[in-house]
Amino acid sequence: MNELVFIGLGLNDEKGITINGLEETKSATNVFVELYTSLMPDFSLQRFEALCCRKIQVVSRQMLEEENGKVILEAAKKGKAVFLVPGDPFIATTHITLRIDAQKQGIKTRMVHGASIMSAIISLSGLHNYKFGKTVTVPFSENFSETPYNVISQNKTLGLHTLCLLDLKINENRFLTISEAIKMLLEVEQKRQKGMVTPDEVAVGLARAGSGNPTLKADFVKELVDYDFGAPPFSLIFPGDLHFMEVEALIAFADAPASLRRLAK
Amino acid sequence: MNELVFIGLGLNDEKGITINGLEETKSATNVFVELYTSLMPDFSLQRFEALCCRKIQVVSRQMLEEENGKVILEAAKKGKAVFLVPGDPFIATTHITLRIDAQKQGIKTRMVHGASIMSAIISLSGLHNYKFGKTVTVPFSENFSETPYNVISQNKTLGLHTLCLLDLKINENRFLTISEAIKMLLEVEQKRQKGMVTPDEVAVGLARAGSGNPTLKADFVKELVDYDFGAPPFSLIFPGDLHFMEVEALIAFADAPASLRRLAK
Repeated sequence: MNELVFIGLGLNDEKGITINGLEETKSATNVFVELYTSLMPDFSLQRFEALCCRKIQVVSRQMLEEENGKVILEAAKKGKAVFLVPGDPFIATTHITLRIDAQKQGIKTRMVHGASIMSAIISLSGLHNYKFGKTVTVPFSENFSETPYNVISQNKTLGLHTLCLLDLKINENRFLTISEAIKMLLEVEQKRQKGMVTPDEVAVGLARAGSGNPTLKADFVKELVDYDFGAPPFSLIFPGDLHFMEVEALIAFADAPASLRRLAK
Repeated sequence: MNELVFIGLGLNDEKGITINGLEETKSATNVFVELYTSLMPDFSLQRFEALCCRKIQVVSRQMLEEENGKVILEAAKKGKAVFLVPGDPFIATTHITLRIDAQKQGIKTRMVHGASIMSAIISLSGLHNYKFGKTVTVPFSENFSETPYNVISQNKTLGLHTLCLLDLKINENRFLTISEAIKMLLEVEQKRQKGMVTPDEVAVGLARAGSGNPTLKADFVKELVDYDFGAPPFSLIFPGDLHFMEVEALIAFADAPASLRRLAK
């Protein structure tokens, strides 16, 4: 069978994959993995290879972007190729091009889903899934942009929460911290004065979502900016209107100050 | 160890769980499962029990809502209790209350994430994750509401996609179909005349996301309303502005008509 199966590795470590994903990996002709679109803090390729009882080829961003994943497509023309991707395979939009190219070359594609950082963050926070608006990535300062501030403002105006993913460069071991992201947003607030990301607004910081030791802290921005979240990866939520059950969840799970109760709607 | 571990079953069948989730289930003192918040079309409790090498107690909506999950909390006070939930544990907001109650009673809680229908639908569609606005559930006609139409309108005005989950009553084997959902939205359009859900707008229908045989079809609403999607569960996406790469993905994966290319922005 000539096909290309995209499989989500899920979160954190080599056991974040599903049983279905593991079985598909074992039965493939060739197996490839990329580990640059998301950080899986406790993932060991060696342990994963032991779990699958086989060798796996690591592909770089360069191999995928400059060479259009040629090596993967060639393998899929000769048998069943599996491409392992952190999280759920197409939540990072990077690999959609590879899937379109495969289909255009007559290669059948399928996917086996994995747990995604998106739903993990929402699950951990205790905030209501259907109250999240558009998601945004906060870039490093050298790529400064007002977009994150604008997305938060737009969502907040509609009463919606904003999930902010914080930029990372895994190859360089660089991770935008929660404190850096907040400072960048406060800087835009200084200019725009819309009252959207002020020191007195509430935010929720998360580190290592999906791992065995996530850190979750809800507090006023002025406090959160100095909080020690430990090791990456990081993310940040700016809540819109808070239902009283959401406030109770933030107090129970994210160590939010009890004074948050007066914000419940 | 006294604790309550919420574990996501992931999607479709008993092998949608992660290796971590399966190991945690095997080592628990007591294991509970609910199967009413999402449909897992190919899930067999018997096969899952064989996979875990143990008996699992099914809990009903009534046991959780009317009796506040007392049986689970009592088990968690005596050892390690595992509560298995379809998808990612807190994407359906139902179980947040149980987690808060557990914490209030001094029971430590943790979670092991699973693949969620939310990221599965987005991954399958090839649409860009960061362009989705607020999500909405379309109810059965006896609970008719204009909210879904309003959410689609709001998102579309901002250029954003809307993910519509379609209501289901698993105990009664009732599933709102894509056709029924579209007709309900067209009815609101008739009244409101905002041009948001017309027969000439594009939508994407999905059936059995996360299974081995998902059906995906993008087309104009007037065509989609008669399309046969086969067995449930169903969902529906109303796209906002479409990037040309998103249009190519819909043509490649969702059998969209080539005329969609003129809509790309």
